[in-house]
Amino acid sequence: MTKDIKDISLADQGRLKISWAVSNMPVLNLIKKRFLSQKPFNNIIIGACLHVTSETANLMKTLKAGGAKLALCASNPLSTQDQVAASLVKHDKIPVFAINSEDHKTYFKHIKSVLDFKPHITLDDGGDLISQLHKNRQNQIKTMIGSCEETTTGVIRLRAMEKDKALKLPVIAVNDSQTKKFFDNRYGTGQSTIDGIMRATNILLAGKNFVVAGYGWCGRGIATRARGMGANVIVCEVDPVKALEAKMDGFQVLNLEKAVKKADIIVTATGNKQVIDKKHLINLKTNVILANSGHFNVEINVLALDKLAQSKKQIRKGLVQYQLKDKKINLLAEGRLVNLACAEGHPAEVMDLSFSNQALGCEYLLKNKQKLESKVYILPAAIDQKVASLKLKAQGIKINALTRDQKKYLQSWQEGT
Amino acid sequence: MTKDIKDISLADQGRLKISWAVSNMPVLNLIKKRFLSQKPFNNIIIGACLHVTSETANLMKTLKAGGAKLALCASNPLSTQDQVAASLVKHDKIPVFAINSEDHKTYFKHIKSVLDFKPHITLDDGGDLISQLHKNRQNQIKTMIGSCEETTTGVIRLRAMEKDKALKLPVIAVNDSQTKKFFDNRYGTGQSTIDGIMRATNILLAGKNFVVAGYGWCGRGIATRARGMGANVIVCEVDPVKALEAKMDGFQVLNLEKAVKKADIIVTATGNKQVIDKKHLINLKTNVILANSGHFNVEINVLALDKLAQSKKQIRKGLVQYQLKDKKINLLAEGRLVNLACAEGHPAEVMDLSFSNQALGCEYLLKNKQKLESKVYILPAAIDQKVASLKLKAQGIKINALTRDQKKYLQSWQEGT
Amino acid sequence: MTKDIKDISLADQGRLKISWAVSNMPVLNLIKKRFLSQKPFNNIIIGACLHVTSETANLMKTLKAGGAKLALCASNPLSTQDQVAASLVKHDKIPVFAINSEDHKTYFKHIKSVLDFKPHITLDDGGDLISQLHKNRQNQIKTMIGSCEETTTGVIRLRAMEKDKALKLPVIAVNDSQTKKFFDNRYGTGQSTIDGIMRATNILLAGKNFVVAGYGWCGRGIATRARGMGANVIVCEVDPVKALEAKMDGFQVLNLEKAVKKADIIVTATGNKQVIDKKHLINLKTNVILANSGHFNVEINVLALDKLAQSKKQIRKGLVQYQLKDKKINLLAEGRLVNLACAEGHPAEVMDLSFSNQALGCEYLLKNKQKLESKVYILPAAIDQKVASLKLKAQGIKINALTRDQKKYLQSWQEGT
Amino acid sequence: MTKDIKDISLADQGRLKISWAVSNMPVLNLIKKRFLSQKPFNNIIIGACLHVTSETANLMKTLKAGGAKLALCASNPLSTQDQVAASLVKHDKIPVFAINSEDHKTYFKHIKSVLDFKPHITLDDGGDLISQLHKNRQNQIKTMIGSCEETTTGVIRLRAMEKDKALKLPVIAVNDSQTKKFFDNRYGTGQSTIDGIMRATNILLAGKNFVVAGYGWCGRGIATRARGMGANVIVCEVDPVKALEAKMDGFQVLNLEKAVKKADIIVTATGNKQVIDKKHLINLKTNVILANSGHFNVEINVLALDKLAQSKKQIRKGLVQYQLKDKKINLLAEGRLVNLACAEGHPAEVMDLSFSNQALGCEYLLKNKQKLESKVYILPAAIDQKVASLKLKAQGIKINALTRDQKKYLQSWQEGT
Repeated sequence: MTKDIKDISLADQGRLKISWAVSNMPVLNLIKKRFLSQKPFNNIIIGACLHVTSETANLMKTLKAGGAKLALCASNPLSTQDQVAASLVKHDKIPVFAINSEDHKTYFKHIKSVLDFKPHITLDDGGDLISQLHKNRQNQIKTMIGSCEETTTGVIRLRAMEKDKALKLPVIAVNDSQTKKFFDNRYGTGQSTIDGIMRATNILLAGKNFVVAGYGWCGRGIATRARGMGANVIVCEVDPVKALEAKMDGFQVLNLEKAVKKADIIVTATGNKQVIDKKHLINLKTNVILANSGHFNVEINVLALDKLAQSKKQIRKGLVQYQLKDKKINLLAEGRLVNLACAEGHPAEVMDLSFSNQALGCEYLLKNKQKLESKVYILPAAIDQKVASLKLKAQGIKINALTRDQKKYLQSWQEGT
Repeated sequence: MTKDIKDISLADQGRLKISWAVSNMPVLNLIKKRFLSQKPFNNIIIGACLHVTSETANLMKTLKAGGAKLALCASNPLSTQDQVAASLVKHDKIPVFAINSEDHKTYFKHIKSVLDFKPHITLDDGGDLISQLHKNRQNQIKTMIGSCEETTTGVIRLRAMEKDKALKLPVIAVNDSQTKKFFDNRYGTGQSTIDGIMRATNILLAGKNFVVAGYGWCGRGIATRARGMGANVIVCEVDPVKALEAKMDGFQVLNLEKAVKKADIIVTATGNKQVIDKKHLINLKTNVILANSGHFNVEINVLALDKLAQSKKQIRKGLVQYQLKDKKINLLAEGRLVNLACAEGHPAEVMDLSFSNQALGCEYLLKNKQKLESKVYILPAAIDQKVASLKLKAQGIKINALTRDQKKYLQSWQEGT
Repeated sequence: MTKDIKDISLADQGRLKISWAVSNMPVLNLIKKRFLSQKPFNNIIIGACLHVTSETANLMKTLKAGGAKLALCASNPLSTQDQVAASLVKHDKIPVFAINSEDHKTYFKHIKSVLDFKPHITLDDGGDLISQLHKNRQNQIKTMIGSCEETTTGVIRLRAMEKDKALKLPVIAVNDSQTKKFFDNRYGTGQSTIDGIMRATNILLAGKNFVVAGYGWCGRGIATRARGMGANVIVCEVDPVKALEAKMDGFQVLNLEKAVKKADIIVTATGNKQVIDKKHLINLKTNVILANSGHFNVEINVLALDKLAQSKKQIRKGLVQYQLKDKKINLLAEGRLVNLACAEGHPAEVMDLSFSNQALGCEYLLKNKQKLESKVYILPAAIDQKVASLKLKAQGIKINALTRDQKKYLQSWQEGT
Repeated sequence: MTKDIKDISLADQGRLKISWAVSNMPVLNLIKKRFLSQKPFNNIIIGACLHVTSETANLMKTLKAGGAKLALCASNPLSTQDQVAASLVKHDKIPVFAINSEDHKTYFKHIKSVLDFKPHITLDDGGDLISQLHKNRQNQIKTMIGSCEETTTGVIRLRAMEKDKALKLPVIAVNDSQTKKFFDNRYGTGQSTIDGIMRATNILLAGKNFVVAGYGWCGRGIATRARGMGANVIVCEVDPVKALEAKMDGFQVLNLEKAVKKADIIVTATGNKQVIDKKHLINLKTNVILANSGHFNVEINVLALDKLAQSKKQIRKGLVQYQLKDKKINLLAEGRLVNLACAEGHPAEVMDLSFSNQALGCEYLLKNKQKLESKVYILPAAIDQKVASLKLKAQGIKINALTRDQKKYLQSWQEGT
């Protein structure tokens, strides 16, 4: 079996790590069980370019249980867990091409290694496999069934390709499923951001003035959890409808200029750049803590902070203290995603939903291969319903179904009366 | 001036009532002020068929300030506040045709009285004006600019007409504006349902098992407020995605069969019928309280309750106690909307947003009359933004705007990177 | 049977009202049931001076079930519910001497009427019976067993008497039981204050700046419930420890000077006077709402408000709007207790706990009459435990007991280790 | 300078660690500043037996700023931070006798080393210094001023000694100050328990059934924070009054038998033993997480768990998974204090309050040495007020003071009316 990993002797550590993720991914496990008996992917080759983590390992095991032949490479050179890679190779006999901190050249070599397996279906997190396919492997595309994409960024690329008629195969925008986007952002980012701040600082959140910039799904999650920890939360927004929602939800709403003067902690979650800019930095209170939960490390103007500072030193893991003329400013994770850099990112329970959509997305592609065109598709509502149903079932929760009369009533109500 | 109201001597009482609503409708008041100086409705006749309440009075005053000639009738025979009608006639010189508890014939006579004014624009809450126009006044429609519709039910009718090419003028679905639907349901229904239950029962909510059937916007509002009062909230749903959201929001999620056995209070907010049906009624605990916040009084099967009961008696205003063989069941407001029947419906602050959309909807129709076709339109996002901005301003809240660089970044991010 | 009530024909209305209170007082009902079989008060005469309400009626019925002979007068001339008085006389054959709005002379005549029954035990709410006994009926005291007192004010009087050796019989300070003071103030006042504000104003609480002056048990209850309704709560305190608790609980803490400038609503719950004084009034925003939940109507300086105002008018029931030179100020209930004046005071569930302590207090006096001296006693913790246990039982809640080993461990732990 | 530490070369790491604690202890820093100018401890020797952590270092620096001569040893062999010890020696010239993981003999040798300094005042966390003084250094006691004790356990010992007339010097029960016990337990333990669970498991708390055994101050803190993270919290209690409070606070209240069957997570905070015993273990759901936040590791019967298990393995740091016949059980921190073992214990902000009481306790002993007898004292309320005031001031919060009239009113109210 070809593969390229760091150290096969890490396999047993990896298996332990994977086992914990598996314990907390009941939906994917139920799908795995069904796949095991139904074998929907017999004779199907699936190539995946994903973060090589313990949760991803469970997705691989699930697809394999369904009969698929697999090959896996990393979607980011830094996120690979080498023990997990080793375990997948040794214990699951899945070819993996991923080494933590691999260089740019190796990264792309690994992508090619996966494509060499001539997959019928590809899984992407950011679109690198599909991009390589369109650039360098056009002939391979013809025999393909389709692809699934995990992230917003990847989906945006794909829609642009679709618009330009450049897209040559059907793609499922897994990111756009309700059971992905609703749960990841609110509950996943909400908790893990708080977690990251606590691990990096060990400060008490109760009674702190906690500023959240951005009241999108992530910002709402963070604001809700910060309030839940006893903080006094202040929300900053540029969209007046969202600002009004924040106000009605009981938060203080201030503009950044006022908010930064009160802040003990500031977290950005806007998807925009220079949200905390030089003009804000100079008005901060001493000992303030700055963190970012947005995808890119552009929300806090770290360059401006560097220029304002007389010196800086690392005080704790993930916490650098900048000494300005008149104050100290504490920056977490260099302005990168605090929940990934200072904590462990989304809990397995959230990836359970996201990766179940991936697994069912593959099955959907296969079942509908005759019908699908070279477009970007969203999984049908029924799959969202299914994933949510299985999650409820896994938690032992029963809910009701509409009666025949109730269904009829809803129908007729929609028609008028 | 023609008019048909109960008693002109009630006018001063009405003025007081209106003044309180006006105090709590800052956005509409700001619009009124602008209309007063700009007079957008000079020579425009507006006919309105709305609940004749103090909040509606403020909408009428706003349109009049803008130069409009007005005529008002009721959109429901029971909701007319006769003092408000009198005040509008006496103090504002607005022709009103509405008498509380008027019979069916009078109700329609009043609608015709308004149409006799030959309005250029009509305002509807349920679609009765526009329906009469299409049925009996087709010739009047030609000279009209358009119409605004307040409610879901009306909008559904209109979309059906549009689909069948039966719609003969442009209509604004005011109901579908974010600043209408987001705020009415969550914050308005949430609070007023709790208010209605407290007024009708004076029971302590803290520590009660409070079942909410339905986790849509209304249900979320109710569940959140019930928790805020110290209740232990149990959510019932038929949609697994919503059920999972309820669970993740920290509520217990049970099916109705289990929930009704634990319930101290049950509130329905599903938009469906027979949600609390015979099979649930027989499993209730004694002394349970049943209430409905859905639009129609079909959610609790009152007929089944009547059949099960040996006797019933009115214990308090709005509270009837049914004596069954083995238990007592308390029904609020005969299963009608508890927030309207036992409290006072949406607070003026919420109607402020909804009616600002109405006022701006009229202006939008006028400004775009050349462009608009015989379709159902949603007000542009910019008007939502405007309404929310004015609400924030009225509360003294300042928010940020995107910088030029940030706008550019968002643009470019949407393109790829 | 002697009695002095308003109108016996109100009895059936009263019975209905009482039945609702009874439905919501499960603990007292359980005690009533036990009393009915054990008859602890056979041949005992109990004289009560309490608010003549439906909840008090249930206490009377409970004591009567235990075999007591009863006589009841009012502890406040304004709080008597005449229907309840009529029902007690007609349906329960209990002599009542209480007429709503009776004059001062009648009020004291009624107290004497009760004392003419030569009670063995008296129940007081404010200490009027016991005060009359000590002043004018010293000879009656000798044959008495003791007395129970409901309120702080009464208990303070009694402790002063005890200190001066003026107290001539054993008294139970029912007020000081945990199941009285913990629950009344936090949950009772918390909810009923919000209820009073909503009934008096129908304003939306979500998003409002809601100032609570005082962070004692009542203030905490109010602040918690206001937050639960979506308000942004600001706490004002004079005690730094309480202020710090408020801050740690996630509230904004400001001094009154700053708070009043932001306030949409202000509620006082301090037990002190002139908390909202002239200097605060002149800094209020227009359209602010002022309410008081403290026992006396001295917390808001209404006299100063009267002087500042150019005019005032009643806008709604319980809401007077003062027109000042530059603003409008809305005062609820003339600065009296807003939860009693604009809503219905404590729900029956809370009185259930308080009156169960009264009932068990009477039994305790009787059982321990040999041992008790002329002192102020607090009911033993075991009775608090009992009342709480019955309340839990009534709600179908089971809790654990310590095992023998655990009891031993606690003992030994207290000794060292 | 005598001392006994691990490695002086760790001093610079220690200084960094201390600087972060200092940043978050504003009250102690204000006291330090005052001490620096007033030098209250000139010529006073203070011997301390405390956890040698960065927060304790700040207390040492504060006392030294006040002119004290110091000597420090550890109050627990495992809690010493060797870098902090090194920094105190190198940078602050304070003799420290503490090495992480020192054996029993060394531990007591270090205590003797501190006593050899012949301190006038001792600081204890658990009472080891004072115990040694009474056993082996009776002659030293005569020249002493007094002692301060940090913990419940130590205070219990001291009260026992006082009762037996064995106590030979005045002692301050710092533990019993409001600004210690109210804040440590609710806010400190509340947050750090959640923190510990998240670090040990990385599970999602939202939607989990989270059982808290014990509703004392710690249990309330944990329950509140768990709810704040979106968990559905179930409380178990043996005290019916506390159980009823939990119910009224909106939690589910169940007995352990029922609760353990629903639990996804169980945290004990009871101060008792075998709370989670064999009979509960066999009824747990598979994959449950068990943690303890009580002081001793007796609350979960780990021995019983060991016997039930077929095997166990360490899955993550601090997480051991037991494989039983029919399920997996995850135990955190071997049943030891999860907030200390899996996170970092109380944040500095909480120790700021506790250690400010220690510092002011020393000053109080000194100022009142003439008056104090060989008893256990609680610091006067004025010091609690002072500590809380300084904390508020450090946060820029201003509160009100009573006016002269208000003070008088309170006085007179207490007298009667």
